[in-house]
Amino acid sequence: MINRRIVLASRPAAEATLDNFRLETVDLPALQDGQVLVRNHWLSLDPYMRMRMNEGKSYAAPQALGGPMVGGTAGEVIESRHERFKPGDKVVGGGGWQEVAVFDAGQPGVLRKVDDSVIPLSAYLGAVGMPGVTAWMGLTQIIEPKAGETVVVSAASGAVGSAVGQLAKARGCRAVGIAGGADKCAYVVETLGFDACIDYKAHRDFDALAAALDEASPQGVDGNFENVGGMILDVVMTRMNAFGRIALCGMISGYDGAPIPMARPALLLTQRLKLQGFIVSEHMALWPEALKELGGLVATGKLKYRESIAVGLESAPQAFLGLLKGRNFGKQLVKLV
Amino acid sequence: MINRRIVLASRPAAEATLDNFRLETVDLPALQDGQVLVRNHWLSLDPYMRMRMNEGKSYAAPQALGGPMVGGTAGEVIESRHERFKPGDKVVGGGGWQEVAVFDAGQPGVLRKVDDSVIPLSAYLGAVGMPGVTAWMGLTQIIEPKAGETVVVSAASGAVGSAVGQLAKARGCRAVGIAGGADKCAYVVETLGFDACIDYKAHRDFDALAAALDEASPQGVDGNFENVGGMILDVVMTRMNAFGRIALCGMISGYDGAPIPMARPALLLTQRLKLQGFIVSEHMALWPEALKELGGLVATGKLKYRESIAVGLESAPQAFLGLLKGRNFGKQLVKLV
Repeated sequence: MINRRIVLASRPAAEATLDNFRLETVDLPALQDGQVLVRNHWLSLDPYMRMRMNEGKSYAAPQALGGPMVGGTAGEVIESRHERFKPGDKVVGGGGWQEVAVFDAGQPGVLRKVDDSVIPLSAYLGAVGMPGVTAWMGLTQIIEPKAGETVVVSAASGAVGSAVGQLAKARGCRAVGIAGGADKCAYVVETLGFDACIDYKAHRDFDALAAALDEASPQGVDGNFENVGGMILDVVMTRMNAFGRIALCGMISGYDGAPIPMARPALLLTQRLKLQGFIVSEHMALWPEALKELGGLVATGKLKYRESIAVGLESAPQAFLGLLKGRNFGKQLVKLV
Repeated sequence: MINRRIVLASRPAAEATLDNFRLETVDLPALQDGQVLVRNHWLSLDPYMRMRMNEGKSYAAPQALGGPMVGGTAGEVIESRHERFKPGDKVVGGGGWQEVAVFDAGQPGVLRKVDDSVIPLSAYLGAVGMPGVTAWMGLTQIIEPKAGETVVVSAASGAVGSAVGQLAKARGCRAVGIAGGADKCAYVVETLGFDACIDYKAHRDFDALAAALDEASPQGVDGNFENVGGMILDVVMTRMNAFGRIALCGMISGYDGAPIPMARPALLLTQRLKLQGFIVSEHMALWPEALKELGGLVATGKLKYRESIAVGLESAPQAFLGLLKGRNFGKQLVKLV
């Protein structure tokens, strides 16, 4: 069987480019006992992938040069040599940027059957998948918001940010988003129900962004779910109340180049802040509780989300580079089937 | 009665200088009901005082211009109009930089009787006082060290740092100090029992300090008790193991001038670090437990400390400026009686 896949052709020197990727056609060997062959219907594109394209110390091993880009996928079993899976099963796993993927299905956590009768298959890569659990975990385990507190989240219209604000609202908080562009901000407030959203593209410098944040969070900021880093984090830090909590989920503004310093770390001391970095995949014990809440909210229409869909495997690199620039609007997916 | 005191004459423009202080002689009014008059035997000088000399948002209200410098003191009651205190009692409180101080003794936490029969009076301003409790709190409540882990502390020969390392050793950790000068480092290892101590004055740039830290902490760093900030924090962060904890107690390197950025905040994410700022005075409920351990260790000679003693009220400003430059060696005190 023929498989088409996108591999990491070279590591980015600074900003990632299309040249870093290569489309390959390869022959698939026959399945071994315990393996399952899955046709990927959806590829998930996520900011963390940019960090894995680099060499060096990070939270995940670097993506192998010449190997298929690693990533979450949702699809359908087309052949199975494992008793728990049969053709037609809808499954979620880390199938990577390719049309079909072989899973060693016996290993725990590698492949998970899902029910797409109520929740669309693609949502298992977004609101009811890794991004949703990421939002849930940073909010409930690090920010631990109390009703009446103000929670700020950057990249607020994205897969993670949109869930953060809605989960915060469900807990009685004021939810303030930061997003790039008037259309995204309108969506965050009008559709997702945040109390306010700041368009960082309309507030380009520190003082302008700080003034907008003051207006949007008149009681100051108690919790910050940070997806972006750089100047946005610097501004939010200056508005944080004593004993504020910062869940550090991503720093996408620095992924594509030189490290960006934190301007005023002394605020962490003077405001007695807690800042904690976390990776959702390292806390698997919490996933069932998170997925239960997220699945329930999506099934009942209380947790809204939006998808940016690129079509065809060839579109994945361009869509991924767009994601790093904030050109997506909601969860970035690639539709293969 | 005549009182002599040192007041804040002006706020520092950048580095604090002697001109920021002024010695005054004032008349004391008669005691009111509920008040206690204390002769200060010891003044405590502490780095946090530098932050209070500035205007603007910090964890404590700025020190009043023209008012006596605020600070911890230990002394003896010489007159009392409160039933719980009588002349001759040894007491600890926030008496400020002056020879005698009037306390409203009925307010909780304002004045505490201590027993100086086993533990010297001055130790209640150091190892069995605010600095010791600070060490205990950051270590046990934020770093939460496990036996076998490596804990690094900057300003390791100081009042807080020396306790941090000894408490970490008592919990089965490897304790690594950072201090300025060969004599301080020798004291930290030979007298206090740390496993290693790095002389930052002998390792002036990032790479040299990083190499020294690698050698001193071959298993990486799990806990960092940060008193200094700036380049020292930047270096330690690059050596932290996944899930490391940073107790942010002070950033003395930045107190005296412009804010110092944090070079690589992305490490907080990639290493999933927790960083938390704290102020010991905001967690009074923990003091009894901390003081019990600290007092027991000092009384039995298991917790060692050292004092830098300046003599006479007039010496306080110069001693304080020296403290900011690391010229003290151990807890900085001013002896008045």
